[in-house]
Amino acid sequence: MTVKTKTFRIFGLVLFCALILTIAESARPEEGMWTLDNPPLKLWKEKYGFTPPAGWLDHIRQASVRFNDGGSGSFVSPNGLVLTNHHVALGQLQKMSTDKKDYVKDGYLAKTRAQEIKCADLELNVLVSTENVTDRVLAAVKKAPDEKKALEARRAEIAKIEKESLDATGFRSNVVTLYSGGEYWLYRYKKYTDVRLVFAPENQIAFFGGDPDNFTYPRYDIDFTLFRVYENDKPVASTHFLKWNVKGAAENDLVFVSGHPGSTDRMQTLAQLELQRDYMYPWYFKLINRRLDVLRRYSARGAEQARQAMDQIFGLENSFKALTGEYNGLMDKALMDKKRKEEADFRGLIDKNADWKKAYGKAWDDIAKAQREYAGFFKQAMYQTMRTQLPGFANQIVKYVAEVKKPDGERLPGYHDSELDELKFYLFSPAPIYPELEQALLADGLQSSLEELGPNDPFIKIALGGKSPAEAAKDLVTKTKLIDPAVRKSLLEGGEAAVAASQDPLIVLARALDPMSRAMRKRLENTVESVESSAGEKIGKARFAAYGKEASPDATFTLRLSFGAVKGYPMNGTKAPYKTLLYGLYERFYAFDKKPPFDLPPIYVERKAKLDLLTPVNFVCACDIIGGNSGSPVINRDGDIVGLIFDGNIESLVGRYVYNEENNRAVAVHTAIMTETLRKLYDAAPLADELEGKGPRAIR
Amino acid sequence: MTVKTKTFRIFGLVLFCALILTIAESARPEEGMWTLDNPPLKLWKEKYGFTPPAGWLDHIRQASVRFNDGGSGSFVSPNGLVLTNHHVALGQLQKMSTDKKDYVKDGYLAKTRAQEIKCADLELNVLVSTENVTDRVLAAVKKAPDEKKALEARRAEIAKIEKESLDATGFRSNVVTLYSGGEYWLYRYKKYTDVRLVFAPENQIAFFGGDPDNFTYPRYDIDFTLFRVYENDKPVASTHFLKWNVKGAAENDLVFVSGHPGSTDRMQTLAQLELQRDYMYPWYFKLINRRLDVLRRYSARGAEQARQAMDQIFGLENSFKALTGEYNGLMDKALMDKKRKEEADFRGLIDKNADWKKAYGKAWDDIAKAQREYAGFFKQAMYQTMRTQLPGFANQIVKYVAEVKKPDGERLPGYHDSELDELKFYLFSPAPIYPELEQALLADGLQSSLEELGPNDPFIKIALGGKSPAEAAKDLVTKTKLIDPAVRKSLLEGGEAAVAASQDPLIVLARALDPMSRAMRKRLENTVESVESSAGEKIGKARFAAYGKEASPDATFTLRLSFGAVKGYPMNGTKAPYKTLLYGLYERFYAFDKKPPFDLPPIYVERKAKLDLLTPVNFVCACDIIGGNSGSPVINRDGDIVGLIFDGNIESLVGRYVYNEENNRAVAVHTAIMTETLRKLYDAAPLADELEGKGPRAIR
Repeated sequence: MTVKTKTFRIFGLVLFCALILTIAESARPEEGMWTLDNPPLKLWKEKYGFTPPAGWLDHIRQASVRFNDGGSGSFVSPNGLVLTNHHVALGQLQKMSTDKKDYVKDGYLAKTRAQEIKCADLELNVLVSTENVTDRVLAAVKKAPDEKKALEARRAEIAKIEKESLDATGFRSNVVTLYSGGEYWLYRYKKYTDVRLVFAPENQIAFFGGDPDNFTYPRYDIDFTLFRVYENDKPVASTHFLKWNVKGAAENDLVFVSGHPGSTDRMQTLAQLELQRDYMYPWYFKLINRRLDVLRRYSARGAEQARQAMDQIFGLENSFKALTGEYNGLMDKALMDKKRKEEADFRGLIDKNADWKKAYGKAWDDIAKAQREYAGFFKQAMYQTMRTQLPGFANQIVKYVAEVKKPDGERLPGYHDSELDELKFYLFSPAPIYPELEQALLADGLQSSLEELGPNDPFIKIALGGKSPAEAAKDLVTKTKLIDPAVRKSLLEGGEAAVAASQDPLIVLARALDPMSRAMRKRLENTVESVESSAGEKIGKARFAAYGKEASPDATFTLRLSFGAVKGYPMNGTKAPYKTLLYGLYERFYAFDKKPPFDLPPIYVERKAKLDLLTPVNFVCACDIIGGNSGSPVINRDGDIVGLIFDGNIESLVGRYVYNEENNRAVAVHTAIMTETLRKLYDAAPLADELEGKGPRAIR
Repeated sequence: MTVKTKTFRIFGLVLFCALILTIAESARPEEGMWTLDNPPLKLWKEKYGFTPPAGWLDHIRQASVRFNDGGSGSFVSPNGLVLTNHHVALGQLQKMSTDKKDYVKDGYLAKTRAQEIKCADLELNVLVSTENVTDRVLAAVKKAPDEKKALEARRAEIAKIEKESLDATGFRSNVVTLYSGGEYWLYRYKKYTDVRLVFAPENQIAFFGGDPDNFTYPRYDIDFTLFRVYENDKPVASTHFLKWNVKGAAENDLVFVSGHPGSTDRMQTLAQLELQRDYMYPWYFKLINRRLDVLRRYSARGAEQARQAMDQIFGLENSFKALTGEYNGLMDKALMDKKRKEEADFRGLIDKNADWKKAYGKAWDDIAKAQREYAGFFKQAMYQTMRTQLPGFANQIVKYVAEVKKPDGERLPGYHDSELDELKFYLFSPAPIYPELEQALLADGLQSSLEELGPNDPFIKIALGGKSPAEAAKDLVTKTKLIDPAVRKSLLEGGEAAVAASQDPLIVLARALDPMSRAMRKRLENTVESVESSAGEKIGKARFAAYGKEASPDATFTLRLSFGAVKGYPMNGTKAPYKTLLYGLYERFYAFDKKPPFDLPPIYVERKAKLDLLTPVNFVCACDIIGGNSGSPVINRDGDIVGLIFDGNIESLVGRYVYNEENNRAVAVHTAIMTETLRKLYDAAPLADELEGKGPRAIR
């Protein structure tokens, strides 16, 4: 469950009927993904008698790590050891792998520092500081005569703030929009790009139960991986690390989750939710199913092909299951009725106050109108593009050389000065690209665009150039040189002249499509985004006016702290326990007659007698999380790490729109199982010692 | 899950949404509780290549046992050993228990035949023969001028058939109404009343997981009990017994369930379902919740009180969970829409044929009208009565002495010659009655009638006689002598004179209420039952005319054969395995930190090392069952017993109205766990040997 990724299963539907019964009654006290500047201190104190000691929040912030390709982690030793999920590390493990050595399937243990393997393109961030820049952004917007200009002004000011901060501090600087634009904050990050693999278990134990068990509980996944962060070829001195607590948390213990939830839509207007429901989700499902079909057929060609496609298949299955849960929420009449009532109440409150009504009253209707506009060109926006890696590179190169010549404030999103390092990091990544896989995906992508848009669509005419989708894809992928990162680099560095002169077929095509894609971008901005942004800002302010800052803002893939008790929940007619044990892992293995995806790596059978079957494997807590929180530490009152978030239960999928304390649970790997398996299965006692703080790591 | 008994859990709701998606697609090939005269031979052959060898069906029939207080069982040795569920045996175990010895909690093993304990009032039946008497019943009804007379004529003819058969054969003889009156069959049973307890495990392992796990799966209940049937103080020679197969069934194996499903409502009209939904179920819930409240308060008084109330609490919690599942089906719009469409299609087919239309066309409207009538006096019918044991005895005694004087055909249901033995068996039962418990239940029952009917209702005036409900109940229960079975017997044998002269306050009250209860009985018969019966018969014939005998009839607590594959199913977002093992039992025990209802009897901890944790505990099959099937054997193609039905999963509760092969599963105890625990935990190797056919039982 990462932020990039997010399966259809009949039972997805289930939760929503169940939920509705209790939404109204629940006081939702465990709800919230809180920014560290506004934690619910009063609630913690009243409900749990907990007041964080001085420095507690700062310590957790500095120990928390963002995985820039989507996910979270934490420092767990003073020598730069970072703990995250195996599925967060999956992309990197795959990039290290070849047809000779499969780090995903077989796992890896670096027995010495020298054996720690550098990742191709992994960037980690640690939040250094946050600063409220709302006044500055709003002042810049205030002068704009209309919404379009306001959007431009806002972007320009944000880019300026980011650039200034980057220049002044050298830190990665991002302005974050909170409370639908009610607040703007500048977040500065220390950036690490030399990240090395220390330990990964076999994929089969990290993802035991596969797609069926994904997003469910009771669960038995030992989903962890350890990286080490280096600077100047030495492990960083991570003074702010989380102390390893092998006992874990007891039932009903208060725990916290510090991580980077990707996005929630709890503050969206009803009109936005309806557009999601009626246009976006059906399209997601269509897209994902088609792509999965291509990937599975590709996988069936052989073991190497299966290895190449695995990460994408995992990601898409994961997405499909999660999206289904969310979609079911939107399809649920009672949930939507509740949202409708909340919105009506909110608007009623605003309309009662003449000042508020004047300032904010029209915002909901503006957003609704923008949604209707978007519905009118949704199909073109979705299908006049190629969603595969190589055409994506070509498009970025063509745009880059043109954008960087403009003043920073006028550039397209993604091409601001503060964003260029990150763009180049991915564009120049040495990670392998598999041309045959790329070709299969591109051919089907073009085919679906042709089916949806028809042969006379201008995009289709240019993209296919009279060929069939399969021919066009073959031509493009076999003739392009963009697979080589050096070629991408030299084009980028050659600037507009080099790009204009390039005969690379993908660059030629990207040039031809550029005006159309820019026009679409503009249309989306002018008719939808600018309105949503401006009206969202008004609604954000209206919310402050009516309710204060009582709720946490929607998730933004920035650092948040969730809290809640470790506890079981009512599940499918019975109860789910708060924890699972190794007994249950073997139950599931044998109950399914060892058949995949319930098979185990051989070492789990060979060395079973060494294991204490009472060792906890996974546990659940009521902390409010969502995709992006994968890899987040679970922390107790003392600031110790007691677990590692890796999933939410099926009942939590509706959490994008509504949190229900009764059965919304975050699922974590227990600290005890990680050291138990390191010591008894993997002969990695020194690493377990490092985690448990038993002196420095013995082997160097 | 017995037929008498039938809980609210938010997740009950779940199944229905899920089900609807697949109802339309499912061909429902595993559906059906088939009478042994009409098994789906063609389907078995086509789908499984199975044709039962000569004598196979007869053998299974003769090995199958009906527990007359609700439940099923089978002969499993040539020496009269009968296997059923612990929860079917529960009532008898409780009746044997005293404050000194608790057979329910502690279990029991008879180490010699002499130690086998006779049950207070357990009657077992074995089906000897069946005979189609449809023509005879219909001929008797044909001459009746109206529905009321038709009902009387039908009852009289049925009573006559039963009496003739009883007199001629000595067998318990019951006429069964099948296909809503489309067919009438005479079922003759060999009756056994000397049934002795051989082995029962501790309740905590039979009902591991308690109410939360009830009606759910994966499950870990070793829910079995062994009785031995005696005649003339000797074990019966049960030549037709099922051979014990300790290997059990493999995944996807075809298996059969032979048992006595209580009732289903798959053939009811929409109007009947709506009455159930809008009147019956809400009333059930109110009644059960109130009674559970009384029982729980009574239990809280002390350990002995808790022991006394336990069987009733189990039964009511069981009912509540099951009824909730059913009610959710009725509340589901999509399911009701499907029923509506089916009915419209069926009626359309009938109306197209002029003969059919004339004969059957009006039946649905007649039933609908009767439901509206019933709704008009439903509350009085439900509350003008006392639903506890002692007033029930008094009412039966008063009615008995009057009814037996009438010609058999004119008597009230329950008082026909063929039914008198059974009535007396229960009326004279020496099983203990707990006066304080009785008083608490009666007081609350009278209180609820007072609340619902008001102080001026004639029933209330007579029943309370100016006292408060608590005073009235105290007076009645403390002064009555009916607690003594000898008193009940002497009153019955004393006839009308003895009953008229009795000053026992409960008899006095029953006499006073008798005219009112008879009037209510008549009203129900005349306005509802006669119409349902007559119209139901028409619909049954119409169904034959339109569709033939393709579907099995609704369950009637008579012998049926279900079939299906042993297989897992999609569950709450993931998959449920087809079997569970001892590993999982210990997982659940330790995951809940050994807390009730997930605690284990001490022997399961002390002797754990002796057990093979790979032993299967429970398994599921797609066989179509319902309450009453508890204790049914699961039989393979060879006629061996491979398991013991004890429950359905939560997804099967909607099965009262619709069967869904995708996730409707019967849950069974695996044969292996029964002999494994007998041998390794209970030192009962001779009994395990008897089951496994390893020579006659060693200890005598």
